[in-house]
Parts: sequence; C-alpha cells; structure tokens
Amino acid sequence: MAFFPASFEDLIDRFASLPGIGRKSAQRLAFHVLGLPEGEAEAFAETILWARRTVHTCPVCQNLTDGDICPVCADERRDRSVICVVAEPRDVASLERSREFGGVYHVLHGVLSPMSHVGPDDIRISELVKRVAEGDVKEVIMATNPDTEGDATAMYIARLLKPFDVRVTRLAYGIPVGSNLEFTDDATLVRALEGRREM
Amino acid sequence: MAFFPASFEDLIDRFASLPGIGRKSAQRLAFHVLGLPEGEAEAFAETILWARRTVHTCPVCQNLTDGDICPVCADERRDRSVICVVAEPRDVASLERSREFGGVYHVLHGVLSPMSHVGPDDIRISELVKRVAEGDVKEVIMATNPDTEGDATAMYIARLLKPFDVRVTRLAYGIPVGSNLEFTDDATLVRALEGRREM
Repeated sequence: MAFFPASFEDLIDRFASLPGIGRKSAQRLAFHVLGLPEGEAEAFAETILWARRTVHTCPVCQNLTDGDICPVCADERRDRSVICVVAEPRDVASLERSREFGGVYHVLHGVLSPMSHVGPDDIRISELVKRVAEGDVKEVIMATNPDTEGDATAMYIARLLKPFDVRVTRLAYGIPVGSNLEFTDDATLVRALEGRREM
Repeated sequence: MAFFPASFEDLIDRFASLPGIGRKSAQRLAFHVLGLPEGEAEAFAETILWARRTVHTCPVCQNLTDGDICPVCADERRDRSVICVVAEPRDVASLERSREFGGVYHVLHGVLSPMSHVGPDDIRISELVKRVAEGDVKEVIMATNPDTEGDATAMYIARLLKPFDVRVTRLAYGIPVGSNLEFTDDATLVRALEGRREM
C-alpha cells in the first residue's frame, strides 16, 4: 500500500534514483520540494531542463561548456602545447582550483574498464590522438586517478602516443601534503620512495 | 572563477539548496542528471512540476493527497471516532506501516515552536478543534514527536480540547526520548500505541 499520493511517490522515486540518495533521504527531499515557495519548484524543474539544453562538450577538449568552445580553450593565455588528460569534467575543476596549471585539458569522460565493458571507443581517446597528431603539442600529462583503471588508461594512451614526437608524463605519486607517514598505505609509501628526489 | 558552464553551476546550486546535500554531493547529482538518457532528465523535471500541481492537503485530515479527500479518510472501514494527531505527513506513513492503527489522522504540518516563531495559528490546530467540536470523536491520540516541542504541542492541544467530551491520550514512551517518529521501528510504534495513556 502506498501511503502518499502517486505523483508524490513518483517524486520520491526520482530522487531515490539519484546516486547516493536512499529511500529516506529521497522522501525528505520530496517533502522539501513540495514545501518550497511558489515558483521555486518550477525554477528547480526549469534549471534541470535548461542545463540539459545548453550544456554540451567543448569540441576541442571535450570539457563541459555552454559556449562554442570552453573558457579554457578560448583563453589565449593558456599554453596549447601542454595537454592535461583527465577522466571527468570535475577533475578539471579540481586542477583549475589549484591555479598551478597553465596548459589546456582533455577530458576522457571515463576510464578504460574491462569489468564495466568500457573500451577505448567508449571514451574520448581518438579525439586526443587527433589533437596530438595535428602537431604543436609538446607534452601530454596523464592525470587520471592513481588507481588500477586510471593507471591502465594512462598506460594505454601513453603507448598510443608513442609514434608522435610528444613527451607523455604522469602526475607524481607520493604522500599527500599534510598527511602522516604512520597512516600512509604501503603501496603509496613504495611509490613515494621510488619517486624520491634530490633535496 | 567558475569552472563549469553557468547553467550547470545553477543546477549544482539547486541541488545544494536541498536539505542534507553538500556542495560535493550537489556536483555529483548535477553530473548524474546531465548524463541521464534522453528524456529522463525531462521526466525528472516534469515529475517535480506534476507533484507540485496535483498534491494538496486533504480537507478533512490535512494529510497530503491528490484526490478530493485522502485514502484514509475515504476508507469506510476506518474508525472516525479516534483521531491520531501527527506533526507531518511522513508520520502518517510511519504509523500506517505499523498496521496497528484503525482510526483516522490529523496532520498539524508543524509543531509549536516559540524559538522559530511558530504559533498556534501557523499549524492546523483550528481544523482539529473544529473536527472535535462537530462531535462523534471519542478519542484524540497525540502522536507528535517525543521531544520538547512535540510535548508542548500535545499539551497545548490537550488543554484546548478539555471543554469537549473527548479522551485525549499521548503515545506511550516506548519511543526513545529525543528521537524521531520517522525513524522509529514498527515494533516500537506498536508498543507505543498499545501503551498510550490518559493526558
């Protein structure tokens, strides 16, 4: 037996279908939306539609944008000879926040994952190869996550870029700044030792 | 500097405005909605609009419904002489789940809270008094949450119903003090109903 009106149960179902939202949270969110001031719920619905309608991928770097090309690719001060390859648009946001990187990006929209049936044709690898093949690229920094799939994807792309006159690098592994040797896992410690540098 | 398109930032803002959703979760949800299959995001938006348009309060018990009156009030097998008073529609759902209660409900849509400037006229108390005044009601069970505001609201209503020939009871303290009706297990709710006492 349903204890709420059908249209309200539908709203709960919609929220419950979102990642990380359980049944109880979905119910709380649905009540919240129902209790919003006049016009606010409509604005919520319209924001969803508007975002879906305007947001697409940048034809150059595949990052999300609502313009012709994304702000990074449009920025003439960015160094087009260095491409930083990331798995997801949110990774671009993280790197931009660090204000350290002055090059451009390439967003793969995923990583290779045989377990989840994600192959090279399912992510934006060919677009990257095309960019490199067009020349002018001196370095490709692989900034996929430091896990099995991220490593495998970086390795695969590095091999693919071998024929081109381009340096392929990988983000350094090591102990996170501000963390503690005692609580660092063995794999990270091994990498940190391997990657040790002259002081 | 914004790292995402404006319409996408708007979508993140919308999700972040929901209760219990932080900035990171909101970003994850926005990405999810953007990645939904064609038509799914539209269906999400329409569900919000549809729920807002069809759901209203039952003119009898003030619970949420999309019909003329709610399913409980429409059910002829329910005992109209016993009214269970709850703070929120979700509390009706909790009590119905326990399958112990055969009477009808009254939803206050809040509790008295001087701290939050919620007075007797801000919740559906007068509607309850009117129901009791119309006669045929033998018992009113106060099932507001067992916390300070829930107790005070129950006490206030009990005093208000004194002039009428009606028994006013309170859910038994089988419910752990300081907790929440919404998260109470069925067995505890059954005990609480069985052990209700004269106020």
